[in-house]
Amino acid sequence: MNRRHFTRLTGAGAAGLWLGIPSDRVPDGRRGPWNRVPELTANPGRLADRMRRLATFGANDAGGIDRVAFSDANIEARDWVAGLLRDAGFTPSTDFAGNLVARRAGTQAGLRPIMFGSHIDSVPGGGNFDGQVGAMGALEVATVLGEADHATRHPLEVVLFTNEEGGKTGSRAMAGEVEPFELDLPTASGFTIGDGLRRLGGDPARLGEVRREAGSLTAMLELHVEQGGVLDSDDVDIGVVEGIVGIMRWNVTVHGMTNHAGTTPMDRRADAMVGAARFVTSVYRIARDTPGRHVATVGRIEADPGAPNVIPGTVRLTLEIRDLTMEGIELLFERVRSRSEEISDASGVDFSFERFYVSRAAPTDPRIRDVVEGAARSLGLTSLRIPSGAGHDAQSIAILCPVGMIFVPSVAGISHAPEEFTADADVAAGTNVLLRTLLALDADGLG
Amino acid sequence: MNRRHFTRLTGAGAAGLWLGIPSDRVPDGRRGPWNRVPELTANPGRLADRMRRLATFGANDAGGIDRVAFSDANIEARDWVAGLLRDAGFTPSTDFAGNLVARRAGTQAGLRPIMFGSHIDSVPGGGNFDGQVGAMGALEVATVLGEADHATRHPLEVVLFTNEEGGKTGSRAMAGEVEPFELDLPTASGFTIGDGLRRLGGDPARLGEVRREAGSLTAMLELHVEQGGVLDSDDVDIGVVEGIVGIMRWNVTVHGMTNHAGTTPMDRRADAMVGAARFVTSVYRIARDTPGRHVATVGRIEADPGAPNVIPGTVRLTLEIRDLTMEGIELLFERVRSRSEEISDASGVDFSFERFYVSRAAPTDPRIRDVVEGAARSLGLTSLRIPSGAGHDAQSIAILCPVGMIFVPSVAGISHAPEEFTADADVAAGTNVLLRTLLALDADGLG
Repeated sequence: MNRRHFTRLTGAGAAGLWLGIPSDRVPDGRRGPWNRVPELTANPGRLADRMRRLATFGANDAGGIDRVAFSDANIEARDWVAGLLRDAGFTPSTDFAGNLVARRAGTQAGLRPIMFGSHIDSVPGGGNFDGQVGAMGALEVATVLGEADHATRHPLEVVLFTNEEGGKTGSRAMAGEVEPFELDLPTASGFTIGDGLRRLGGDPARLGEVRREAGSLTAMLELHVEQGGVLDSDDVDIGVVEGIVGIMRWNVTVHGMTNHAGTTPMDRRADAMVGAARFVTSVYRIARDTPGRHVATVGRIEADPGAPNVIPGTVRLTLEIRDLTMEGIELLFERVRSRSEEISDASGVDFSFERFYVSRAAPTDPRIRDVVEGAARSLGLTSLRIPSGAGHDAQSIAILCPVGMIFVPSVAGISHAPEEFTADADVAAGTNVLLRTLLALDADGLG
Repeated sequence: MNRRHFTRLTGAGAAGLWLGIPSDRVPDGRRGPWNRVPELTANPGRLADRMRRLATFGANDAGGIDRVAFSDANIEARDWVAGLLRDAGFTPSTDFAGNLVARRAGTQAGLRPIMFGSHIDSVPGGGNFDGQVGAMGALEVATVLGEADHATRHPLEVVLFTNEEGGKTGSRAMAGEVEPFELDLPTASGFTIGDGLRRLGGDPARLGEVRREAGSLTAMLELHVEQGGVLDSDDVDIGVVEGIVGIMRWNVTVHGMTNHAGTTPMDRRADAMVGAARFVTSVYRIARDTPGRHVATVGRIEADPGAPNVIPGTVRLTLEIRDLTMEGIELLFERVRSRSEEISDASGVDFSFERFYVSRAAPTDPRIRDVVEGAARSLGLTSLRIPSGAGHDAQSIAILCPVGMIFVPSVAGISHAPEEFTADADVAAGTNVLLRTLLALDADGLG
């Protein structure tokens, strides 16, 4: 399936044909275990309408939204979603962390809930898809289940997490990870996080009660736009997320010798800038040539003293490495550090490294990846296993239960800007994969 | 001759032996044209004493000096030197640019003067040798001529130039290059340049009258410490300066694409930092591998947006190239620019260049280089032809007449700091080369 071609040809309104499923692939794809999953599908028109309606809350002149957590627009949008969840037969409530949690009972006693959802808060000047695709997808799944009067064996929880963009406050509260000092942090809304939680109906003093027990959920699923450009440029419909990558960051200092740029011949320099440049090129080369999905970035650099006519004695830069496993990060860093010693010997400069940030990797559950992949295949959709380089609420929940994530393409990978865009058909495709994944997990569990 | 070994063994006081001239070399060296040059030599004890005395004007606790142009210490030191020049039979005066000019008539009518000198102003927190070696060397030459009652065919002018460190005001005034706006510039003395000139006895309103006619001087000679570390590390006694290098500076902008450092795979980046790093390494490699005395430096760099977790979309850096000829600078820049196009193709980034500074090259006169070299050889001193990467007063005078410069070693090339150091024996050796060069030019003219 040529996704781009299809979406251009048909757009949002081509109900019935909207998935563009080639007839020769659907029968094969739906054989096997997927026969046991009810034939429910999202209503793409309704879904697209709700995406448009959601975009009105906090809409700005740039065509994007200013719907930062705790803002009036954020609260109004939550209320609107809560009403629709209630209409779908779910019981919405707000926990002490301000998470909107809408529950529905299951038919089989003793089964733990399946949670699914995302967030509707935005960065300042954000776009209309980050978080919102997953939130409207979850709402659509809930609505489809309600319309069909389809009971699930497991209890269900639809969640809109609080303040994802400003620190994943809601999902991290469920994981028991919010530190007291965070409550005093200012946010783009003008309120501190603590005051913001109260505005949503939460209670920062009782945040500890939001914490879920590890193992208290069967699984958690999140649909989201990719934010990278891989699915879009490769014409792939669905990203089967392998996990949210771990992150380590270092301050790297290159120590050379400050000298007069006019009087010091080329062969008598200990030029920290040249050492830094060799370091940056080696970081890029090592990251590119080492097999794996890791990324390595030097995002900041400065030279001291920093004058055009002085050979820099010191260059400071940052190194960031992300990978699906912390071991992968350590391995890559070790190669970079080892290479820096060779540069030291060749350039007469020294390197020092100070690690200043660590964010643990959160792999998705391998069994759920298979289910997501099967769900996509059963719908005639192409899929690709990819890591998530960005953080998501599912990352917080991953220490509580098996999690799965479904990505849909974002055009050119543009993110956190009014230009971010995901076609209606892609939103609907992702929602159907979420729906079928949920139904399959409900039918078969994770065994 | 092992210069370092010698200077350590004998120090300043070993008069008679002070040059450490190997007996087997002097006779050879003094054969030929040098037989016609009078056997005058500097008095190393007196010279060392005057260096110590000069260091008291503006002495600071760090062991260096704060004798910035126009300061009281600067004026007091000038007065002291003027008195000694008068004692030597020269007639000191101050021109409208505040230059101390001490004249002595020649014996042959119609010959144009030979000028020699340097400066005694310092940077704030400067050392005791930059400018001062050349000033005391010129004073010693004048004193030796006076003591010996040695008449020269050419008129002589000993000059202490005004405000070398703050813009070569005095020498540039002689070249007619001081712009009116410069008179209003503040200086480290607390006075503007215009007010400072008045303090020295000059008159900014009549600065135009200081301008010398091109061709009005036979030659100009300047003795100076090297400021680089080449002579010191290579154990060479005398630098035969090939000229003051020209300088061009560019602002270089590397244009890539800002992107999320987590979600953008390594093979889909247009990372301006990587492009900049490749550029810096290529600048260094091209400068090192291209034959010549040029230097190329990237002294300043910054990445935009400059966050550890963002692939930089833009990196700005400075490029400086210095060479003895402007053509050499252009040639090297063309290679760098050409290489940047290859980096563009390989990295998906673009480069733009904006030249923001040009300082013309000032080659010394090739005939004077030969005389300086011969003078050093006649004294049993080793010499090396080297460019001057730093600016000097001789650079300004070079558009008026043939100039020559003599460098003496500066330990480790430390400059503009209290730690700058040149051994007494090296000061004396340089002074003798200045003296013999002057006498040879006086005897033979410029061929």
